[in-house]
Amino acid sequence: METVEKECGALGGLFQAIVNDMKCSYPVWEDFSAKATKLHSQLRATVLAAVAFLDAFQKVADMATNTRGATRDIGSALTRMCMRHRSIEAKLRHFTNALMESLVTPLQDRIEDWKKTANQLDKDHAKEYKRSRHEIKKKSSDTLKLQKKARKGRGDLQPQLDSAMQDVNDMYLLMEETEKQAVRRALVEERGASAPSSASCSPWW
Amino acid sequence: METVEKECGALGGLFQAIVNDMKCSYPVWEDFSAKATKLHSQLRATVLAAVAFLDAFQKVADMATNTRGATRDIGSALTRMCMRHRSIEAKLRHFTNALMESLVTPLQDRIEDWKKTANQLDKDHAKEYKRSRHEIKKKSSDTLKLQKKARKGRGDLQPQLDSAMQDVNDMYLLMEETEKQAVRRALVEERGASAPSSASCSPWW
Repeated sequence: METVEKECGALGGLFQAIVNDMKCSYPVWEDFSAKATKLHSQLRATVLAAVAFLDAFQKVADMATNTRGATRDIGSALTRMCMRHRSIEAKLRHFTNALMESLVTPLQDRIEDWKKTANQLDKDHAKEYKRSRHEIKKKSSDTLKLQKKARKGRGDLQPQLDSAMQDVNDMYLLMEETEKQAVRRALVEERGASAPSSASCSPWW
Repeated sequence: METVEKECGALGGLFQAIVNDMKCSYPVWEDFSAKATKLHSQLRATVLAAVAFLDAFQKVADMATNTRGATRDIGSALTRMCMRHRSIEAKLRHFTNALMESLVTPLQDRIEDWKKTANQLDKDHAKEYKRSRHEIKKKSSDTLKLQKKARKGRGDLQPQLDSAMQDVNDMYLLMEETEKQAVRRALVEERGASAPSSASCSPWW
């Protein structure tokens, strides 16, 4: 019975550690989201600067095409180069939009979800843990009283005592199972909160 | 003789048109240089934002590596991704530097050179053209006087007249040659002022 009790305590502590880890992760995620937002706005400004640069570049190419100095070939080479650069500009624009639409926006939504879920997990666990402990304590003290009475010669109480002790044991085992499930749920949630980042980070770079 | 005179006028006009084209090109080049400078400063800011973004990204990866939720695999995947992005950041940084060092700075130097050269060509040509025209005019009017005298019966002036007319003809031919060379120099200079742009634009994108 003592082993089961220790086990329950360890599981409860593990659950708490995981939930704390999750709670500590929000500032990290929020910092990441803020830096991504900043990068996004910088990239937008860069796209605008690239557009202006390529327009000026095209004017140089047009000039080379149109002047008399036999520079038509240079002009068309510059125009081709300019068009190639415009396709890179289009990719940059696409990437910039994806950064916001596929990373920052969904991430911010999820951070809120994660916060809610972790809080709920924590709350549910604390309630359940407290309730179980309380019930076990009560049942245990009842059992101890029964034990004392039985020792004082009330042999007729033995079947009742056996049943009560069995109950306490069952309650411990049930609590252990509940704690295991709480830890599993917390671990799954924590893993789930890391996985989407790899999913949403990959397509846009 | 009249054809040669027309030819000289046409060549002079062509020279002037080329020089004017070159003078009109400076605002276009300066605009290009300004836009490139603007793009450069935007890219610098973007590199800084990318560095901050990747640092935040690495923190997310570290978090995934270190938490208990069996997310070590996700953490190492994120770390790999982050490292890949850092190599892109390094390329961006390289490109940003090249944009300034290999494009904007040399271009600005060259614009100054082009201005000086075009002005010098224009000045030299105007001086030479004026001088030639003046000399031809003087020689022509002398020849006309000789012609009048010869018509009034001074047959002994004929050899002198022939020589003078030959001189005028030679002077016209010389002027035509000078003009041709001036046009060639202007065309070469104009072509030269377009060529470096294709040379310096290519390596950095």
